[in-house]
Amino acid sequence: MPARRRSWWGWGWEDSALGAEQVEKLRSSLAAAFNRELPLADPPDLGRVDLRPPRVRPPDALSPMMSSDTFDRAGHTYGKSYRDVVRGFSGNLPHPPDLVAFPTSEADVIALLDWCASAGIAVIPYGGGSSVVGGVEPDVGDGFGAVVSVDLTRLDRVLEIDEVSRAARIQAGVLGPSLEDQLRPHGYTLRHFPQSFEFSTLGGWLATRSGGHYATVYTHIDDMVESMRVVTPAGVSESRRLPGSGAGPSPDRLLLGSEGALGIITEAWMRIQDRPVYKTSAGVHFGDYRDGVAATRAISQAALFPTNCRLLDAGEAMTSAGVHDGSTLLVLGFESADHPRTEWMSTALEICAEHHGAVPEGVKEVDRSEEDVRDDEGAVGEWRNAFIRAPYGRDAMVRMSVIADTFETACTWDAFGDLHSGVMTGIPRALAEICGSGGWVTCRFTHVYPDGPAPYFTVVAPGRAGSEVAMWDEIKAAAAEIVLSNGGTITHHHAVGRDHMPWYQRQRPDLYGRALAGAKAALDPAGVMNPGVLVPLGSDAGEGAASRLG
Amino acid sequence: MPARRRSWWGWGWEDSALGAEQVEKLRSSLAAAFNRELPLADPPDLGRVDLRPPRVRPPDALSPMMSSDTFDRAGHTYGKSYRDVVRGFSGNLPHPPDLVAFPTSEADVIALLDWCASAGIAVIPYGGGSSVVGGVEPDVGDGFGAVVSVDLTRLDRVLEIDEVSRAARIQAGVLGPSLEDQLRPHGYTLRHFPQSFEFSTLGGWLATRSGGHYATVYTHIDDMVESMRVVTPAGVSESRRLPGSGAGPSPDRLLLGSEGALGIITEAWMRIQDRPVYKTSAGVHFGDYRDGVAATRAISQAALFPTNCRLLDAGEAMTSAGVHDGSTLLVLGFESADHPRTEWMSTALEICAEHHGAVPEGVKEVDRSEEDVRDDEGAVGEWRNAFIRAPYGRDAMVRMSVIADTFETACTWDAFGDLHSGVMTGIPRALAEICGSGGWVTCRFTHVYPDGPAPYFTVVAPGRAGSEVAMWDEIKAAAAEIVLSNGGTITHHHAVGRDHMPWYQRQRPDLYGRALAGAKAALDPAGVMNPGVLVPLGSDAGEGAASRLG
Repeated sequence: MPARRRSWWGWGWEDSALGAEQVEKLRSSLAAAFNRELPLADPPDLGRVDLRPPRVRPPDALSPMMSSDTFDRAGHTYGKSYRDVVRGFSGNLPHPPDLVAFPTSEADVIALLDWCASAGIAVIPYGGGSSVVGGVEPDVGDGFGAVVSVDLTRLDRVLEIDEVSRAARIQAGVLGPSLEDQLRPHGYTLRHFPQSFEFSTLGGWLATRSGGHYATVYTHIDDMVESMRVVTPAGVSESRRLPGSGAGPSPDRLLLGSEGALGIITEAWMRIQDRPVYKTSAGVHFGDYRDGVAATRAISQAALFPTNCRLLDAGEAMTSAGVHDGSTLLVLGFESADHPRTEWMSTALEICAEHHGAVPEGVKEVDRSEEDVRDDEGAVGEWRNAFIRAPYGRDAMVRMSVIADTFETACTWDAFGDLHSGVMTGIPRALAEICGSGGWVTCRFTHVYPDGPAPYFTVVAPGRAGSEVAMWDEIKAAAAEIVLSNGGTITHHHAVGRDHMPWYQRQRPDLYGRALAGAKAALDPAGVMNPGVLVPLGSDAGEGAASRLG
Repeated sequence: MPARRRSWWGWGWEDSALGAEQVEKLRSSLAAAFNRELPLADPPDLGRVDLRPPRVRPPDALSPMMSSDTFDRAGHTYGKSYRDVVRGFSGNLPHPPDLVAFPTSEADVIALLDWCASAGIAVIPYGGGSSVVGGVEPDVGDGFGAVVSVDLTRLDRVLEIDEVSRAARIQAGVLGPSLEDQLRPHGYTLRHFPQSFEFSTLGGWLATRSGGHYATVYTHIDDMVESMRVVTPAGVSESRRLPGSGAGPSPDRLLLGSEGALGIITEAWMRIQDRPVYKTSAGVHFGDYRDGVAATRAISQAALFPTNCRLLDAGEAMTSAGVHDGSTLLVLGFESADHPRTEWMSTALEICAEHHGAVPEGVKEVDRSEEDVRDDEGAVGEWRNAFIRAPYGRDAMVRMSVIADTFETACTWDAFGDLHSGVMTGIPRALAEICGSGGWVTCRFTHVYPDGPAPYFTVVAPGRAGSEVAMWDEIKAAAAEIVLSNGGTITHHHAVGRDHMPWYQRQRPDLYGRALAGAKAALDPAGVMNPGVLVPLGSDAGEGAASRLG
């Protein structure tokens, strides 16, 4: 039974990569846009990749779950950021994990951490591996004898469903599609659809504070958690299943966003939802971007809670929604499992009209029986059409030395004007300097809050073969500087990992850094958990505090 | 200018206490209900209270903000729980603060903490003093040379309003009414109305994860915070103003609920809202309590987000809403600043009808101009009528040795049936044993979530003069046992303080206790901040860790 295989260097399934014809079409359109030749390199051959030999052998008791296979080690050397794919594609893998562990039970995870903590071996928790911030990269400096990447995808079951409270106990290594497959027969959905859905896990979502596809209210994984179970080097921690509690600072909120630096999430009780039946959507066109922003702000402050409220600037509307008249496009949607949301949409469109928004194609209403919704997989199906192919396209662009990446943030509405114009002038200037002519940057909102939007920027530009990573790092540094100096966060929903550490340390309060190091010292006294992520490597507050407290 | 004075032993303004006639009416109705005499004691005389002399003198530089006045010290000896009022009333004040500090600036707070940390003096942050869990009580054991209660109510200004993002920078010592008074001229409201509104501060709300009057979505103070500024013994910490951020675990969420054990909140950027104009409300009657629960659950799972969704059992409906036919009453409300919510209410009432809910008085719709809303203070005005007098009534009941207190929790819907019947059988049994005949317990929901309700129980029973605290402690212990063993939390929105510590330590994961102690060690190395709250006094993980890490 030959299972589908994931690309060890690129985004997804090997057999889902763009075909030769699609690649050629993309290449000619990009070559025309950049007005230059775009030579095409062949995908790399794993047989020619020479990995450093493993520096450690597992104890016999742990051997059955361990792999030192080249495919496994190469595939766990990077996440899936642009710079990861470029490095994998070019066979540049100096820091592979020494071993990849595939635990199949929580007991396996406990045994693994016991061994690693006692032997001074770094542990890199690995869910779907879709980190775009260096969160799963085993490059941990010289302080560890070896590195084990812990692939949790065999902890993949929905264990229990509470239909009265609408909640489910779910193992953390389950990938998005399998999770939905297990909930669907019961009529439920977690309704959490990040773009990485196909290759990310519940545990990864929790550890990185994932943001789902929906624009408002219950879209962050943080708000869907009832309780979590976590294995740390100091023991197992489980919080109480509660819909709400004011008993001290939230235990779960310390682990949400902890990115594997405190422990490994093994399961969680999650709030689930009835599958949506009633849907209404509309595309609102604005001649002036500022009108679109003002309308979006007004909707976000009117407590209507749209499920979709995605403002695409003219460039984004052209490249991803086929709008060619220079309009700004606001994609609006409402949905419900039990009642039509017609009135909600009317109210939102009244607000848009006050800001010169037009709806040339009218409002689409869908009122489906549950059976119908099951058939096309509802929101998942819709979302797939829009998003799922994008990362496969990026793999193809890497073959052409094209730079294609994104950065995202959030800021208050009063700061957005300057942040946006800072990016839209600063990044093209940086692209011209670094890449020459032909690159572009576009913007959409992925989420909106009453007090501010989460803008998401996409950059595409011609690169030079062999220099892509350095070029992107320079663009990214320019972007981060603009974002931080204009009141944004270094990340709204992509996490910190290793790549964002310099800016994270500038952004978070210093004292919080010390408090977090104190918490880490209590849970991970030997400092083996995802070293260098969140708590800086070798910092006095990190391992130093750990040894003193331990 | 003789300012209104707060009672040093009871709930509120001295001149708002129940008059002799009201007290007599209350006494005769309770005497009839209990079928026994209820002798009435006179309020205590501060002149006859003998406080332990202060054990410390402040340095000259701090003297101007310090008081050793008996009224100030007596008034800061307890919070406002039932057991606090009883102890104050009876002149039982063995642990007064040695000094009460009234800082008028953040610099004052910094200087104060510097002195206390270096001199080993315990610091009790004090906002409005309305804690009902021993959170502001200076009973900190023998490990400290003295105790200073830090009254923050002179940090009481709204400093800045951002009308674009709808947010305001607010000093943490401002009491509820003054905060709303400062926002109202700009057309805004924080829209956070806990029952303690009149005598609680923004900083107290943040430090205790206060729950507002509203039933769903944006009602917890946690969700209204953009950023916080906190003075700790290790320095000042300020988080970045952001509508959302996935950069590591949330720094604010560690301080939300920290109850003064990590530092003193001095100011915060808070999300504010337009003042509501459109309102619709209805009282739905159910013959069977279980139908009321099922309807409430269905509404909470339908993403309608009512502002009010308060299910009163028959006892509560009789005592606080004048419903005398044994019905369960669901008080439903929707409101909005910009659009009528008629459709939202219709949908909710359809759900109620499916569960045999009737609306005998029909739906009330209010559509007011903003000017009108200002005049009657909108939600505040309404809320005041319903709630504000209750704690004054309790002061009067203390004079009659009547036990009158509440406990509250939250649990998942699947656990609610057993938790509720556990309380409704167990507490009357406990009351009969401890108080004899005549007591009662009633239940309402203060908040509802898709996965569970937050039930709030009120207990009234005859006490014995001189034994009230011991009797209540026994009732409370029985209640806590029932709540915890049935899957509830020891507190949904009353915080932990000193009173809930035994159950909090059972409830929170042990490893989280150690992580929190590690964080405290980093921010409060000398362990002087609200000692004994959240991190147990003298625990190895508390002061021990602090000294090792410091």
